[in-house]
Amino acid sequence: MDRLDLIKDLSITNNTKIVLLVLDGLGGLGLEAGGKTELETANTPNFDLLAESAVLGMADPIMAGITPGSGPAHLGLFGYDPIKYAIGRGALGAAGIGFNMQENDLAARINFATVDNDGLITDRRAGRITTDKSSQLCELLDKIEISNVKIFVKPVKEHRAVVIFRGSGLSDKLSDSDPQKTGVQSKEVVALDDGAKTTAILMNEFIHKTQSILAGKHPANTILLRGFAKMPRLPQMKDVYKLNAAAIAGYPMYKGLAQFVGMEILQTGGSIHEEFETLRTNFSRFDFFFIHIKATDSSGEDGNFDKKVGVIEEVDKNLALITDLKPDVLVITGDHSTPAFLKSHSWHPVPFLLHSKYCRPDDVKYFGETSCLKGALGRFPAVDIMPLMMANSLRLTKYGA
Amino acid sequence: MDRLDLIKDLSITNNTKIVLLVLDGLGGLGLEAGGKTELETANTPNFDLLAESAVLGMADPIMAGITPGSGPAHLGLFGYDPIKYAIGRGALGAAGIGFNMQENDLAARINFATVDNDGLITDRRAGRITTDKSSQLCELLDKIEISNVKIFVKPVKEHRAVVIFRGSGLSDKLSDSDPQKTGVQSKEVVALDDGAKTTAILMNEFIHKTQSILAGKHPANTILLRGFAKMPRLPQMKDVYKLNAAAIAGYPMYKGLAQFVGMEILQTGGSIHEEFETLRTNFSRFDFFFIHIKATDSSGEDGNFDKKVGVIEEVDKNLALITDLKPDVLVITGDHSTPAFLKSHSWHPVPFLLHSKYCRPDDVKYFGETSCLKGALGRFPAVDIMPLMMANSLRLTKYGA
Repeated sequence: MDRLDLIKDLSITNNTKIVLLVLDGLGGLGLEAGGKTELETANTPNFDLLAESAVLGMADPIMAGITPGSGPAHLGLFGYDPIKYAIGRGALGAAGIGFNMQENDLAARINFATVDNDGLITDRRAGRITTDKSSQLCELLDKIEISNVKIFVKPVKEHRAVVIFRGSGLSDKLSDSDPQKTGVQSKEVVALDDGAKTTAILMNEFIHKTQSILAGKHPANTILLRGFAKMPRLPQMKDVYKLNAAAIAGYPMYKGLAQFVGMEILQTGGSIHEEFETLRTNFSRFDFFFIHIKATDSSGEDGNFDKKVGVIEEVDKNLALITDLKPDVLVITGDHSTPAFLKSHSWHPVPFLLHSKYCRPDDVKYFGETSCLKGALGRFPAVDIMPLMMANSLRLTKYGA
Repeated sequence: MDRLDLIKDLSITNNTKIVLLVLDGLGGLGLEAGGKTELETANTPNFDLLAESAVLGMADPIMAGITPGSGPAHLGLFGYDPIKYAIGRGALGAAGIGFNMQENDLAARINFATVDNDGLITDRRAGRITTDKSSQLCELLDKIEISNVKIFVKPVKEHRAVVIFRGSGLSDKLSDSDPQKTGVQSKEVVALDDGAKTTAILMNEFIHKTQSILAGKHPANTILLRGFAKMPRLPQMKDVYKLNAAAIAGYPMYKGLAQFVGMEILQTGGSIHEEFETLRTNFSRFDFFFIHIKATDSSGEDGNFDKKVGVIEEVDKNLALITDLKPDVLVITGDHSTPAFLKSHSWHPVPFLLHSKYCRPDDVKYFGETSCLKGALGRFPAVDIMPLMMANSLRLTKYGA
């Protein structure tokens, strides 16, 4: 039995409120051996006070050693096995720009790239053209028409863009045109099963049309497509958990991920204070709230240790806006680690705190990587977070008699 | 490979003695945040002395957040994956009243219920009629005859009863007649596969006959059936572990569960002292003893914190009756938590202690929830308990060369 089937069988509704506060990329590293992490460096009296009556632990987003992207990391937080439930790169790209995919849409990631006179790829990123330049090119490609398929081409950042095909009978069982190396031609898109043959023909037609349009646009004189994906068909939170769930997030990617599992996306200002205010004004309307804080991750990616410390402190400073609402279950964690020392996502487990009346507090009194290791939850997989929140809000009935 | 296949391949016999002492619902909660649990409140010098030369840990009965019933919780303790090996509600009900199911028997749970003049259910529990009243009705239904099937109808408690059908070719691939809600009629029993069609007809015939008999017996004027189950076909302990195993339990449910995995049920008085005496008098006859203490769970279910503390202290006081026998492996744990604070089973992990000459003791010196967290076993799944007991009695040979 899939764990979601079990949870679905056991879940019930009641009047409790659950808040999942995600500081993206929360986990960190010290700048030298034995040094404190960003979270340990931050002055967080409110987190620490909460820790005294909470259970703590270290959550593994996927499994030991695996660095997750935002998609799998959030699926794990929402209780979906991130190995089993993958979101295709194309669909994630569409979510990332706030494009509202429909059920029959097919999406793919675009790289603008450079080919020489022989059609051999010389640069898979077209010299990292500016987003402005890419936007202009996308406008041109957005006008392409192929039989009975509406096409949307939207810029992401620099050489990256997304294309969405809207038509009937489109399949995502397709190989990439991106050969993932230079010195060769881009590949034909090939159908991976019989049902995808017509779609493959359409994709190659689209590619040929873009090549005519881009021919004189060196360095962005071709495109490479990868990650064909239809909208993921994920079990919906209202079915699995019987939760009326809402998402408070400033960035399109996280709104998109939340939407894929059936959360309602709340309009919000983007600052921490504004996001928490959005929680307060909507608190009576939903059972479950996912609040996403982006700046911890982006400062980590920038390698800005001090800025990440500052963001954590700002969340801590505003925490009373949440705790004053007295949610029955409050979780504070990250979706993965983004140590400033690495300037990237990493595989390290993520500090986790769960507060509820029934949580059986451990004796950990600080919220930090080293202290969380001594928490009652020990190291545990992030997919356990949703069942733990459900249990602590008394929303799971007994398994078996 | 199933983990039981691995254990079966590796298990050998020797002259060691293993004792698994289960305090039902042992795990608890403090009455306020940071308060001590029942086990931490109890004065347990003998447990604590044992802890000094034992390994400790916290066992998860099923998985994070899942509250187990007695069936799955004990299957886990006996080393059977409680998600894979489910015991149907009917079979568990039969075990619970000490009914000795035979291989072809089919059992189901009965609720006495109330219907109005239109046959719509108004109360799924018939106003929780007394056990006396239910017993009288069961006697009437016990006399029903249907072609070639012997019928046993036995009271459980209040509106709850059990029916066992004894005949050949009976199948349990049947839907419930209990619609799990009021305001509707009870449902026909439907065959879930072709092999169950004849059985479904028999079940509906039984239901119609009960309805004639109960017609004037308002509020218990109908029955609802659910959880059709044949006797579970579980791997037997003597095959998997090569253990000659015995159960010492006062309550029918736990005798039934032990019987399902092939333990011999020993006659015993129901007090803690009497159960431990039963161990002593039978100690030479078996390799493995499962001793079940019920009162920790029932006092927890009653919300009686102090009584649960008292039961734990009584077990501790009598512990020398076990340790004087010098079992090679002694485990003290629970099947799940039953915090008096929650008055019910819960999802919290369970304190665990294993004592043996070969256990590599950790530095934990007290048997309690918070201290066990720091034990050498950390948090671990309860299905690991049997392999650990087997290993510590040198009953598992090397895996691979």
